[in-house]
Amino acid sequence: MNKIEAVKSVMFFEGLPDEKFNKLAEISILKRYGKGQILFEADIPAHGFFAPIKGRVKIFRTSPSGKEQILHIFGPGEAFGEVPVFEGGTFPAHAQAIEECEALFFPRQDFENMIKADPDLAMKMMAMLSQKLRILVNKIDDLSLKEAPSRVASYLLLLRSSQESDTFKLDLPKGQIAFYLGTIQETLSRIFKRFTEQGIIDINGKKITILDIEQLQELASEGK
Amino acid sequence: MNKIEAVKSVMFFEGLPDEKFNKLAEISILKRYGKGQILFEADIPAHGFFAPIKGRVKIFRTSPSGKEQILHIFGPGEAFGEVPVFEGGTFPAHAQAIEECEALFFPRQDFENMIKADPDLAMKMMAMLSQKLRILVNKIDDLSLKEAPSRVASYLLLLRSSQESDTFKLDLPKGQIAFYLGTIQETLSRIFKRFTEQGIIDINGKKITILDIEQLQELASEGK
Repeated sequence: MNKIEAVKSVMFFEGLPDEKFNKLAEISILKRYGKGQILFEADIPAHGFFAPIKGRVKIFRTSPSGKEQILHIFGPGEAFGEVPVFEGGTFPAHAQAIEECEALFFPRQDFENMIKADPDLAMKMMAMLSQKLRILVNKIDDLSLKEAPSRVASYLLLLRSSQESDTFKLDLPKGQIAFYLGTIQETLSRIFKRFTEQGIIDINGKKITILDIEQLQELASEGK
Repeated sequence: MNKIEAVKSVMFFEGLPDEKFNKLAEISILKRYGKGQILFEADIPAHGFFAPIKGRVKIFRTSPSGKEQILHIFGPGEAFGEVPVFEGGTFPAHAQAIEECEALFFPRQDFENMIKADPDLAMKMMAMLSQKLRILVNKIDDLSLKEAPSRVASYLLLLRSSQESDTFKLDLPKGQIAFYLGTIQETLSRIFKRFTEQGIIDINGKKITILDIEQLQELASEGK
């Protein structure tokens, strides 16, 4: 596999126009690691990100007592370390090859220079990341819309009974409520909208009024 | 709500450092639309993207016979049109205010100039998009990992019986298989890895060998 093919196999770059792969291949460095070799240690400045072509890499932390906690295992096609690299921060954990491994390395400075010289690449990458986000949001909608409305209904009934009124304020930021109900903010917003359109609730900022308690109780019981 | 607060309320920008919001607020234009007013039409160059602050906007296509197909409804906190804007393409559909609406408008040219002048903003946006992607990928893992392994197992058994051998090639690209099994490529890869580690299958590129047919059958039956 040549470097351009290797770059094309990285899911993180999927969807970029062909001419951008050449540039990415130019700045990338093919590195080889033996089994057990360390790719980077936690808390050092994130000098670049990685994409394994062969073999797997574990990302882990060690507790003060020396106990190892594996956070993630990355293999061919996946990229890791790009978030701290783009943020200009430090690596949040250690990375170690768990078998013989070949990986593309994208140095932070070269990547930043490339973006400076070609802002269109940044725009294209944002387009591609944004499109993927939208696809994943829809997927989560698909996966959680069966169960989430019932959980949202139960949650609203719980708030109502704790506040002893049909009108009450949401007690947490929407992102946290979504997390608590096993979904994401976008899906929660969609469910609130749907409930409003169905005349079940009325929303005004953070204030919620329950208009149709029977429908809400019916929805809540569907999940049980 | 002032413009900076409005920009901060856009989920698409969530996670950016505070100083970047000022710049985004500077280039954004607050627009007002009456009920039924068109924000943009399909096939015109995407000259900028939108983020409603108040009211909702429907995205729709019309068939040659004039029938309307609603693709999406966006409300406060959501952004739309950013993918064709970043790609430098045309809008794929029409946008119309379905009620009185206020929206921030981010002109493409100003956004691109901002990125040129401040590549760090591009890096930060990529960091933030990339981190959100990772969170959503994990969420989909959570949501689909209960059922997906059983569907993957069934799929492998189906391939085995159609090819009448314990060793066979995957018949479709992984992304398509993932879609067919109701999950995403990242989760499918994770399931394949897990099956390999459990000694159920062996993978070599696109070639799969079933090592433990009984475990696979058991997994497949769990989903029924």
